Amino acid sequence: MSNSVAIGIDIGGTNTVYGFIEEGGEVLEYEEIPTNGAEPLSYLIDRLETRINLFFKKHTEINLIGIGIGAPNGNHFTGRIQNPPNLSWGDIDIVSSFKKRFNCNTVLTNDANAAALGEKSYGIAKEMNDFIVITLGTGLGSGIYSGGKLLYGHDGFAGEMGHMPIEFGGRNCNCGNKGCLESYASASGIKKTIKEFLINNPEDTFLRNISTEKIDGLVIDNAFDSGNIIAKKIYEYTGEQLGRGLAQAANLLSPEAFIFYGGFSNAGDRILKPAKKSMDKYLINGHAETINLLQSGLPQGQAGILGAASLIWTKN
Amino acid sequence: MSNSVAIGIDIGGTNTVYGFIEEGGEVLEYEEIPTNGAEPLSYLIDRLETRINLFFKKHTEINLIGIGIGAPNGNHFTGRIQNPPNLSWGDIDIVSSFKKRFNCNTVLTNDANAAALGEKSYGIAKEMNDFIVITLGTGLGSGIYSGGKLLYGHDGFAGEMGHMPIEFGGRNCNCGNKGCLESYASASGIKKTIKEFLINNPEDTFLRNISTEKIDGLVIDNAFDSGNIIAKKIYEYTGEQLGRGLAQAANLLSPEAFIFYGGFSNAGDRILKPAKKSMDKYLINGHAETINLLQSGLPQGQAGILGAASLIWTKN
Repeated sequence: MSNSVAIGIDIGGTNTVYGFIEEGGEVLEYEEIPTNGAEPLSYLIDRLETRINLFFKKHTEINLIGIGIGAPNGNHFTGRIQNPPNLSWGDIDIVSSFKKRFNCNTVLTNDANAAALGEKSYGIAKEMNDFIVITLGTGLGSGIYSGGKLLYGHDGFAGEMGHMPIEFGGRNCNCGNKGCLESYASASGIKKTIKEFLINNPEDTFLRNISTEKIDGLVIDNAFDSGNIIAKKIYEYTGEQLGRGLAQAANLLSPEAFIFYGGFSNAGDRILKPAKKSMDKYLINGHAETINLLQSGLPQGQAGILGAASLIWTKN
Repeated sequence: MSNSVAIGIDIGGTNTVYGFIEEGGEVLEYEEIPTNGAEPLSYLIDRLETRINLFFKKHTEINLIGIGIGAPNGNHFTGRIQNPPNLSWGDIDIVSSFKKRFNCNTVLTNDANAAALGEKSYGIAKEMNDFIVITLGTGLGSGIYSGGKLLYGHDGFAGEMGHMPIEFGGRNCNCGNKGCLESYASASGIKKTIKEFLINNPEDTFLRNISTEKIDGLVIDNAFDSGNIIAKKIYEYTGEQLGRGLAQAANLLSPEAFIFYGGFSNAGDRILKPAKKSMDKYLINGHAETINLLQSGLPQGQAGILGAASLIWTKN
């Protein structure tokens, strides 16, 4: 029996999940704590250190072999988080900060890549060599496997599928460009869709109720299931736009599957069915019907830490 | 000194180039012959066999270590050419046909992948691990290197960048879809652009002269250089649309460079300057200005056979 664990840390804009993970992917313990992104990074590391020390005090038979970190804008090559949205840390060498504190091998990647590594090592993509994991949350992230390898690009910034323009001159995106996939297919994109729908249906009670600061996917899911026409239209439109982006990526990379993870992926077929229809329409001949849209099989909240830990275990 | 050669064969819709190539990329002899795509494939192989036997009769000290083939719709995994445009061969196992005749290791890939292999082994991309070769001819093909490996996708059909939609619902493309990059940025795309321009300028002599069955890039280049406004507008529009496709691919893959090869790439900066401007506009923050657009450094007509031969020499 192995007495080693890797620590997987999944840093998010709101919460950070950390866990102690064995080589086979068994999560011995994990916990979610607030990131408190307005405070300096060292405060987050302080809080993690206290908890991590406690774990190893309790389990003196277990040794730490390394720390894998997934974080927004995390660059695998430089070990830096570069101006992550919703975090006040600027451009910071997070790998060195962790190494100094914990004195062990520490590896960084971005959050979507961590999710892709998690699916490959422990999830639904174990037997796949060519697939793209899409994280549907506030934004849209992607991690790409091709030929059995995670793609980083020449500078570590591959996988910005959320910022592929699907409508040139279209909606304003948070990145400063227009018409990016993320500005249609993500929580922030659905928020924009709701605002647009409200212009034509200013009196619709459902639209007015869901038009709040924080979009709740479950509320739209429930309305969809009880036959609400507007909810259906929102997901149909979101799926159509998502499918356009999928077709662009698929014509370029010909993956076996797209795997969806994150809050909004829980909508499942409500979004993925129209997305598949739209994707198939725009695929080059012969590809249509051959590329699957799948939901992640990993426990919600654990794909990130599993993937981050697999940075240590599999050296991908 | 090595006494071995690989034969590189570059099968095109109109002509086929074959050459005898040493490991270091020295082309000992090469020749271009008509493909005669309306005839059965075996006729082309007959003609090649006669010539190849002649070479080895002359050079008894040289032995053949294998044959690499680049061909439109050539599938690396199956060894089949699948319904290539402009060739009447249907879906055919070309690798077995060559193996039967020449009794040596034979490897197939598509023409754009062969060009990418050529740039990596012997051209401008020797030191690059992340780049995309774009062949600008009748159509637009692409071969993608990422992390030092040529990408094939799960079924050998990665790299269909010419069929990424850049305007949904846009121009009819030969593939049956609408708005594909190829229908704007290629010889057939420029033909469509000329037709569209003619609608607004029916009396323009230059447009009427170039609006022929076969577009001659050199004629447009010369007009451009002598200050013809319409020629400038044609390349500006082509560059703008090309840049859109480049931005989409770059946001996904973050290559170090795009490398242009093939007939229409001779237009060089006339198209690539507006393409770079357009690409930079649509790239996500931080990527703009970091991705180069380069012209192939390989001799025109030889990238295909060099790349095909490197299938044998480098086992990529």
